[in-house]
Amino acid sequence: MRMRKVKWAVDYLNDANCLIEDPSALKGTWKERFDQKKIHVEIGCGKGNYSLNMAKLYPQEAFIAVEKNESAAGIAAKKFDDANQQENLVLIQKDAANISEWFSAGEVDVIHLNFSDPWPKKRYAKRRLSSSQFLDQYAQILSDEGQIQMKTDNSSLFEYSLIEFQNAGYRMIEISVDYRRETHDEDVMTEYEEKFVSLGQPIYRCVWTRNNKE
Amino acid sequence: MRMRKVKWAVDYLNDANCLIEDPSALKGTWKERFDQKKIHVEIGCGKGNYSLNMAKLYPQEAFIAVEKNESAAGIAAKKFDDANQQENLVLIQKDAANISEWFSAGEVDVIHLNFSDPWPKKRYAKRRLSSSQFLDQYAQILSDEGQIQMKTDNSSLFEYSLIEFQNAGYRMIEISVDYRRETHDEDVMTEYEEKFVSLGQPIYRCVWTRNNKE
Repeated sequence: MRMRKVKWAVDYLNDANCLIEDPSALKGTWKERFDQKKIHVEIGCGKGNYSLNMAKLYPQEAFIAVEKNESAAGIAAKKFDDANQQENLVLIQKDAANISEWFSAGEVDVIHLNFSDPWPKKRYAKRRLSSSQFLDQYAQILSDEGQIQMKTDNSSLFEYSLIEFQNAGYRMIEISVDYRRETHDEDVMTEYEEKFVSLGQPIYRCVWTRNNKE
Repeated sequence: MRMRKVKWAVDYLNDANCLIEDPSALKGTWKERFDQKKIHVEIGCGKGNYSLNMAKLYPQEAFIAVEKNESAAGIAAKKFDDANQQENLVLIQKDAANISEWFSAGEVDVIHLNFSDPWPKKRYAKRRLSSSQFLDQYAQILSDEGQIQMKTDNSSLFEYSLIEFQNAGYRMIEISVDYRRETHDEDVMTEYEEKFVSLGQPIYRCVWTRNNKE
């Protein structure tokens, strides 16, 4: 969803405490930076509610929220700073296209893809966060037991992703075609998710790990 | 769904032209029996509408409908005989628990699992037509390019099946979490399916093949 420019938010980014300006500079030292916490990365965090609420729910784990849109990232940054969660929550305002340059091998424990842009037109398929370009990079940075968790309301993106992950050598360990059919207090809802659930639309979810048996 | 006994249907089975009484006796000769046609097997055909309509839609392919319930099988048999489709449509009224005894290796081209009984209780999981016991047998009888096509309205059975097939070494080649979102004239609707679609409920579908790259 395209967002209008929010001037205060873009300005706020300049002084945000939670902002990591150069993630590549931390490559290989994230575990140290976060006191050996389990490291989650949410790619495409939007206004940041998911990462913020997860960081509150799991104070002993660390959350790195990534959002390329300046306005959304600025709003997230303000929220993160106000919530004073710097111990376990930071923000990267960058395009994740070269995410493997930010983390060294095995440095990330969980990657979250929540309601990612479906880029429905085939010519933009490479921009989907579950396209093989991204999946190969995730494989590089994930730990041995690392997981990728995806949630979406978009059935076409979900179907595409299931095939892409399989073909990239991932193993599906959980799947739901109607995730909120049951309560899942272990996982917080995003803003989009609340809206879709209130409309009675299904939430699709899958969790993958690397297929280390290969 | 449990069915009440339909006496005329049970009686009809005794003289049904389409009935194959001893499928094991045809093991290894099915292709010959069907004039080298592509061989489809529908396991759990119920009252037979799917196999019958597919047999009409694809006269150059052969359909073997399997149903253990006598009443349902009898109704299907009557329909098949009335439609005079013996050239490419037969019925087996048996439990498919030992289906690999009916076909030799590679003899089946497509297996169809339509709206199979979900057997929701865990202690009956082995009875599900997508449990590993069945998947291992399907693997034996499927041709190299053979496919298994599954449709269901049951989200739990679908989720279970996706994991089981993956773990049994199958490769997903098509998936839909809302199959009738688009028209699919190449595949006919079952009676259940028509009902669910009219109620606006999603139809889940997946197609797998053997992972011959292993």
